[in-house]
Amino acid sequence: MNNSSLRQNVHNLFAFYRFLVIIQKKGCGGVRLRTAITRKKGNGPMQSHRIALSAYQADDSYIGRVQKLVRDVVIPYQYQILNDALPDAEKSHAVENIRLAGRKLRGEAVPPESFYGMVFQDSDVAKWIEAAACTLTAAPDPELERRIDALVALIGQSQHPDGYLNSYFTVKAPERRWTNLRDAHELYCAGHMMEAAVAYFEATGKRELLDIMCRNADCLCRQFLERDRRGCPGHPEVELALMRLWRVTGIARYRELARHFIDVRGQEPNCFAEERKKDPWPVREGSAAEYDPAYSQSHQPVREQRDAVGHAVRAVYLFTGMADVARETGDEALLSSCRALWESITKRRMYVTGGIGSTVQGEAFTEDFDLPNDTAYAETCASIGLIFFAKAMLENEHRGEYGDVMEQAFYNTVLAGMQLDGRRFFYVNPLECVPGVSGVAATQRHVLPERPGWYACACCPPNAARLISSLGAYAYSEGEGVLFADLYAGGAVRTAQGVTLRCETGFPNDGLVRYTMQNSGKFTFAVRIPAWSRETALYVNGRPAELQAVCRDGYAYLKRDWQPGDVVELRLDMTPRKLYASPRIAADSGRICIRRGAQIYCAEEADNGPVLPLLLDDGAQPFAEPFDPELLGGVVPVRTAGFRLRDGVGPYTDERPKAEPATIRLIPYAAWANRGPGQMRVWLPAAFPGLP
Amino acid sequence: MNNSSLRQNVHNLFAFYRFLVIIQKKGCGGVRLRTAITRKKGNGPMQSHRIALSAYQADDSYIGRVQKLVRDVVIPYQYQILNDALPDAEKSHAVENIRLAGRKLRGEAVPPESFYGMVFQDSDVAKWIEAAACTLTAAPDPELERRIDALVALIGQSQHPDGYLNSYFTVKAPERRWTNLRDAHELYCAGHMMEAAVAYFEATGKRELLDIMCRNADCLCRQFLERDRRGCPGHPEVELALMRLWRVTGIARYRELARHFIDVRGQEPNCFAEERKKDPWPVREGSAAEYDPAYSQSHQPVREQRDAVGHAVRAVYLFTGMADVARETGDEALLSSCRALWESITKRRMYVTGGIGSTVQGEAFTEDFDLPNDTAYAETCASIGLIFFAKAMLENEHRGEYGDVMEQAFYNTVLAGMQLDGRRFFYVNPLECVPGVSGVAATQRHVLPERPGWYACACCPPNAARLISSLGAYAYSEGEGVLFADLYAGGAVRTAQGVTLRCETGFPNDGLVRYTMQNSGKFTFAVRIPAWSRETALYVNGRPAELQAVCRDGYAYLKRDWQPGDVVELRLDMTPRKLYASPRIAADSGRICIRRGAQIYCAEEADNGPVLPLLLDDGAQPFAEPFDPELLGGVVPVRTAGFRLRDGVGPYTDERPKAEPATIRLIPYAAWANRGPGQMRVWLPAAFPGLP
Repeated sequence: MNNSSLRQNVHNLFAFYRFLVIIQKKGCGGVRLRTAITRKKGNGPMQSHRIALSAYQADDSYIGRVQKLVRDVVIPYQYQILNDALPDAEKSHAVENIRLAGRKLRGEAVPPESFYGMVFQDSDVAKWIEAAACTLTAAPDPELERRIDALVALIGQSQHPDGYLNSYFTVKAPERRWTNLRDAHELYCAGHMMEAAVAYFEATGKRELLDIMCRNADCLCRQFLERDRRGCPGHPEVELALMRLWRVTGIARYRELARHFIDVRGQEPNCFAEERKKDPWPVREGSAAEYDPAYSQSHQPVREQRDAVGHAVRAVYLFTGMADVARETGDEALLSSCRALWESITKRRMYVTGGIGSTVQGEAFTEDFDLPNDTAYAETCASIGLIFFAKAMLENEHRGEYGDVMEQAFYNTVLAGMQLDGRRFFYVNPLECVPGVSGVAATQRHVLPERPGWYACACCPPNAARLISSLGAYAYSEGEGVLFADLYAGGAVRTAQGVTLRCETGFPNDGLVRYTMQNSGKFTFAVRIPAWSRETALYVNGRPAELQAVCRDGYAYLKRDWQPGDVVELRLDMTPRKLYASPRIAADSGRICIRRGAQIYCAEEADNGPVLPLLLDDGAQPFAEPFDPELLGGVVPVRTAGFRLRDGVGPYTDERPKAEPATIRLIPYAAWANRGPGQMRVWLPAAFPGLP
Repeated sequence: MNNSSLRQNVHNLFAFYRFLVIIQKKGCGGVRLRTAITRKKGNGPMQSHRIALSAYQADDSYIGRVQKLVRDVVIPYQYQILNDALPDAEKSHAVENIRLAGRKLRGEAVPPESFYGMVFQDSDVAKWIEAAACTLTAAPDPELERRIDALVALIGQSQHPDGYLNSYFTVKAPERRWTNLRDAHELYCAGHMMEAAVAYFEATGKRELLDIMCRNADCLCRQFLERDRRGCPGHPEVELALMRLWRVTGIARYRELARHFIDVRGQEPNCFAEERKKDPWPVREGSAAEYDPAYSQSHQPVREQRDAVGHAVRAVYLFTGMADVARETGDEALLSSCRALWESITKRRMYVTGGIGSTVQGEAFTEDFDLPNDTAYAETCASIGLIFFAKAMLENEHRGEYGDVMEQAFYNTVLAGMQLDGRRFFYVNPLECVPGVSGVAATQRHVLPERPGWYACACCPPNAARLISSLGAYAYSEGEGVLFADLYAGGAVRTAQGVTLRCETGFPNDGLVRYTMQNSGKFTFAVRIPAWSRETALYVNGRPAELQAVCRDGYAYLKRDWQPGDVVELRLDMTPRKLYASPRIAADSGRICIRRGAQIYCAEEADNGPVLPLLLDDGAQPFAEPFDPELLGGVVPVRTAGFRLRDGVGPYTDERPKAEPATIRLIPYAAWANRGPGQMRVWLPAAFPGLP
């Protein structure tokens, strides 16, 4: 198959869709459109597929600026880290591991102990390649391509003749290949490298890494579809990667293997328990101890799972693969599980910042409504995975809530994961920080008040880079005759169906989103109406959208014979709002947080002095300050009224602490911890006057 | 030395005291006496010593009823447990271990694996003997004495010819004696058995166990004053026990050894690190891993320690020994450390319930003001140890704050540690409980919503039993010419100085405390005026105490030529009060708790339905319901006004949850979890109207 037919294949496959029979009765959640919009009768939400990486070109609005930061700073910075060229950062050794594996395969003497780092160190390189590849779609960069090509050559040299690829096992323990699927991340690393291969091929048309990873996928197929039909990945990831590889290559056995991994997961006897019986070698000391199969979502067959449990990143990577397979195979039972798991996460186990994972123990979900702010885990990777899951669900059934959560996780937790200068990163994203306790107390050692430059376990930084640089593929999607705008991303889009349009927006700082058609064509333009926007206005060529517009399931569907210069304008409600948590969430009861548009706000010590003594006045209306281009890379601060409690004598007193009126200034959570360590709170205790 | 001269010795030693030169400028903290009381000029707080166990006889008031429960239920119940006679409870094997050790010493074949339980399983027996011995001072019980004697015989049979005594090492690893002081609890077990010996001797005059433990103490002296002068206990306890043994026997080397253990602690090179180098055998798998010397307060010499760190029980046991030694040796540097550590605990690291230990990780203190309610550890034993520490400080310098904390820890955490029926026990005492999360979520597995019958690690239940049954010795103390009433304990007291009086009180349910002199004598009667009592009245023979009374450092000193029938009446302010935490305590900001007298209250689901949706109205005044003898063993419930938030749709909403006025009913925290599992909160979110 040559390159162009391969690409065609992708779109042919995407063209397949089906209407779901479930009638969705909900409209645009919480939205009151100013113009009357007739609800379109008919079937439920439609399927869609993502646009090609190259179909979106960012302009210099918010997304474009973040992508530029990734391209100009993050990618080169991380390249130095991966090559151990930054002496002050945590040692990576990731590229060197791959080089050593190649040397060993060429017969050179490479002692096992020369491997350094995590068992999944390879995946850092894979994610970096994917991130770098995605940036190439925005701007050619021969030097960067040369670097990637050099890495691809190293990777190729480290591949075994049968397609096997993993520097840890090649250098350290070749005889132990596939004997610790539970902990050794072989399939996880393979998956990430497949994703990198797909991205690099899509960005450049270069096949070398794609061919390497097809050989690797073939090796996996032989191993897991023929030799060991019980094995499955301890850390899901390869499922969604195989689906991507299938979409690009059209090779059906990759999809078959993805589905197989999903089918065998959680079946009795548990494959991880079985392999431990054969040879219980530990990846790290102590790691062979007690193991809860729920940690890796292998406690029951996936079609029976209804609660999101265990390691949060494993969970959302798995659920993404499940949703992908459900879409492509029409597996209703699987989709039904995905829906239940989505509900479990987003209705009961997700922070208001789109963070998931309530505990450091197992980096995991805990129980419904257990969402502590100070000991939160809320790993950056987990929110990235949640975006994958949301996108995969969107592709199954286009409903605004998936887009809403995608946006919530992106504009809050994912962006908070990166310093504004692109050189430091959070792994853990707490909703409350008290220097002196956070990062220090035994229960909060994982909660750092400032972003480190790198991590021994460095999964998050390159993961954020690849998500950001591929954001266009999350911002838009296509259904039959429909172009969906799922996120508000300024720039130009050109779809496979021939639609081109330009989006101009100051989002998330500003609520005006203007789409201008660049060519003519009869199609439906569907734009997400976020549930958070209470008063939303939609204009087509300056006129309020009325009969033209159909709003259902969180999207406004505008069907029209579009002409060049036609303008669709969305005016979102950017009034700062007080948010209240369900009283079931113990950590937030009696507290309020502030949201403006897609952004959750927080109070920081830099603006307020110590934050712990602040009470937010529920009787006051928060208001937005003017956009400040100098502050934190350009934000709209919010002010509201409250009180500051004075500290009394001793820890407990029966005299009410003196309170003085205070103005509380809040900034977007994504921008916290950019001005030195200080107290930070998302949920502030409320002063509730005049209840009820 | 015969018995009576031994006893005399005890009191001779107690008679030694000295005035401290530190002028205490504080009066009775927070107390406004209705009657004018002249502040006595002069020296600082005086030293004191505890009354003999037999000097206090409880009546049928609160303390007496709890002591009766211990005598009638807890002691027999725990005896059955320790003898494995209760099939439904967690297996103890503690008595059997001692029996096996004896058999082995007699030459019978006893395989090492026949030992069962914790390395400190012996201490459960020791604490039980101590508890049982203390009950004998209240009421003779030949059957109980027979049981104790039989245990003493077993213990004697398990003692090595050189005085060494420990069933774990005797049965399991005799060659490893003294090679793992860090983890193996040999000195801890020895200390507890010394305490048991002292108590049984004091209660009955029987010397057998005392002689066994003197031989054991002699063995320790040879080992640690001669052979290994660097070693010290991984779990402090023997220090305070040796001081007790010294007080009873007058044998100076026991005091010397106590002081020595305190002196060598934390000196470089760290003795625990050194012994690990020699033979790093682990007591439990994994227990030989990374070790923070702060865990056992061996990170620096004790005289340099200023922050309470590490394992909370180890800490307060150590500090008690330090305070004991400081008192008996006039060691000002040591006392100064004790004061700093007291401040560290009580001003910055203690829950409002008198609980200490903010984290399950290491059962430990964390950082200042880190006092999470839901993941609290607040071990029952730690509050018992805090009472020991408070009492030892009181004996150094009689200040009301020590008595206040003693009372706070006892009436809240210690009593909460025991089911009202005396058959079930809490180890961990959280300030918030949410069934479904508490005891289940990874971070809260240790936080059980209901008391189990016994524990694999069963330190707390017999510890509570021995404290309760010896409470008289904490309730009263003597200084030269002074009888101190430190707690309000109904019953009769007869001191070594010949004072006899009777106390009648409904405390803690009622605030009236009446002392009636039973004989004549010129002495000072000093009664604690608790800081929590805002409006306190004191009457002598019905007349408001005026010039007769001197209040300083939290005590009212009444000096008089007392006649039989003279009555001192204390009327404490039992108005329920709202308590506010320092804004430095993140977990409690914006929250309120209710205290009435010495008791901290909580809201339970049994009275209120779900507790999480409740807001307490700061504008309302809580009021006491009438005493209800039928409720929870007899309590005074408190009611106050508040609001109940209705649960909305979804986890987060910008619509303020509907609130309806609600009456919130609260019960003493000590009585929580006696009506099945349900939500419980000590600190409730507040509705603050009309701030500031």
